Amino acid sequence: MSDKITVLGRGIIGGAWAIVFARAGFEVALTGRPGVSDEAVLAAIEASLADLETAGLIPSAADARGRIHSAADLADALDGSVLAIENLPEDRDLKIAAFADMDSLAGPDCVLASSTSGMPASTWASDLAGRGRCLVAHPGNPPFLLPVVELVPAPFTEAAVVERCRDLMARAGMAPVTLAKEVPGFIFNRLQSAVLNEAMGLIDGGYIGTRDLDIVMKQGLGLRWSFMGPMESLALNADGGFRGAIDHFGGALKGIGPNLFTKGDWRDTVADRIHADLLNTFPDGDVKARQRWRDRRLMALTNHKRETASTIGD
Amino acid sequence: MSDKITVLGRGIIGGAWAIVFARAGFEVALTGRPGVSDEAVLAAIEASLADLETAGLIPSAADARGRIHSAADLADALDGSVLAIENLPEDRDLKIAAFADMDSLAGPDCVLASSTSGMPASTWASDLAGRGRCLVAHPGNPPFLLPVVELVPAPFTEAAVVERCRDLMARAGMAPVTLAKEVPGFIFNRLQSAVLNEAMGLIDGGYIGTRDLDIVMKQGLGLRWSFMGPMESLALNADGGFRGAIDHFGGALKGIGPNLFTKGDWRDTVADRIHADLLNTFPDGDVKARQRWRDRRLMALTNHKRETASTIGD
Repeated sequence: MSDKITVLGRGIIGGAWAIVFARAGFEVALTGRPGVSDEAVLAAIEASLADLETAGLIPSAADARGRIHSAADLADALDGSVLAIENLPEDRDLKIAAFADMDSLAGPDCVLASSTSGMPASTWASDLAGRGRCLVAHPGNPPFLLPVVELVPAPFTEAAVVERCRDLMARAGMAPVTLAKEVPGFIFNRLQSAVLNEAMGLIDGGYIGTRDLDIVMKQGLGLRWSFMGPMESLALNADGGFRGAIDHFGGALKGIGPNLFTKGDWRDTVADRIHADLLNTFPDGDVKARQRWRDRRLMALTNHKRETASTIGD
Repeated sequence: MSDKITVLGRGIIGGAWAIVFARAGFEVALTGRPGVSDEAVLAAIEASLADLETAGLIPSAADARGRIHSAADLADALDGSVLAIENLPEDRDLKIAAFADMDSLAGPDCVLASSTSGMPASTWASDLAGRGRCLVAHPGNPPFLLPVVELVPAPFTEAAVVERCRDLMARAGMAPVTLAKEVPGFIFNRLQSAVLNEAMGLIDGGYIGTRDLDIVMKQGLGLRWSFMGPMESLALNADGGFRGAIDHFGGALKGIGPNLFTKGDWRDTVADRIHADLLNTFPDGDVKARQRWRDRRLMALTNHKRETASTIGD
């Protein structure tokens, strides 16, 4: 019998987690707010599974779909689960109530995780009897195309729980990273914020246009960063490795820090200009069509990375 | 007769520019400090051209090599050139002298550009008679694998010169972006600094390890950014396009800004730890071998992006 995962919440992230675990062979129990049907999320899941099969990323959409089940209620969903992952709206009271319910209904070995991008477990689990089994498991969007998932323990989360969650995520084909402690925005969104706030400041300051800003990333930095991280990239830019790179560039790196626009004090009006700039570059100004293009590109990139890792090395 | 390009400086960037222009059909005149031979840079150029041919990125290494010529001196190199690009060490006096020589020797229509990553043209060209034809053309490293090149005009650079340089770079297969005005670090290195300073702060603060930090990028953000920029990525994360995304995430984005570690006040000792972490992940701790791996991966990614752009769209 395969391990069973509870997915709580029927939005985009909940549906995406169902795909991640089902394609890896886990049984998935879907649940959410009582009185709401699973119909819409199952339709979205089926569409994405079909795309993944077409892209050659899963052998059978039907097999994966067959492992996703609608639970009668939360107790039914949790029965026998090794991991429950919560994907409700970012509302603290909602999470406090949901984790209280899960903690009282789940078996003692079930890990309780939240997909939240902004609320560390210390803000919603500290009063729970089972707080030691609670943590954040924050994915990219969508998690079936971006492998990274950030595991963020609260001070009270047991180390063994973090390890169990990490193991389950790795078995599901994800690339889990573990934070040693909580930090606002975790890692993914802090790095993203650093880039976005700097980009907004540069565009608002009239230094560069939207299209050219994006080109600097996708025809430059982003090429390296799609298969190396920023630290490895820097280490390979000097013959002396990372220490050599810091000896060469460390002063410039530190010096430019206080000069950056990352503080986030760009004017809100610049967003309207960027919005218009981007719509003009989308075929027919169609955001939905461009999102489908993005997902097809991400699927092709996933295949490319698998092939090159096996031929050139990872 | 093909257009002729002067490449001044025989280091890594000079050799790489020779490759960029020669593979695109331009004639390249190589020159540099008097009394120094072209032998070493030509050997490096030949090795890279062979790699590019093996990767299927150029039809013939020999043909491209045949378009690269050693000039007798700077006057010979500049004779008939439409663009001269300087790649000397980052020393202001050196650049002032080199551009004075080039301005007196080059024909009136020759654009004079510098590959500098840190010195805007206003710091070394302001006293030149021909300062109107001077600008920065800052590439990634190496420019034959990262298409982006930042064109940075000084206040005195003529708009027509920027356009001519942009046109030549586009004809050479580069992806030129144009800054409206000078800013310290230009765009590429400001975005890179924002990420690196934040990453150094997170590692120095004990929030995450080197390997996991790199995973957040290469299994997450970097996948999107390799074919979309950060602005397009954000716009596609909300159904309402960029304006919708800012309505949803703008507050969080601005709020996290002052909280970031981007200021560059990490302790220098953290670099030693990162250096050791990375060496342990390189096969045999061999930086040179890992650099060759990086270049092969970049070449494979270039082929992948061309294929997907033609089948899925760009």
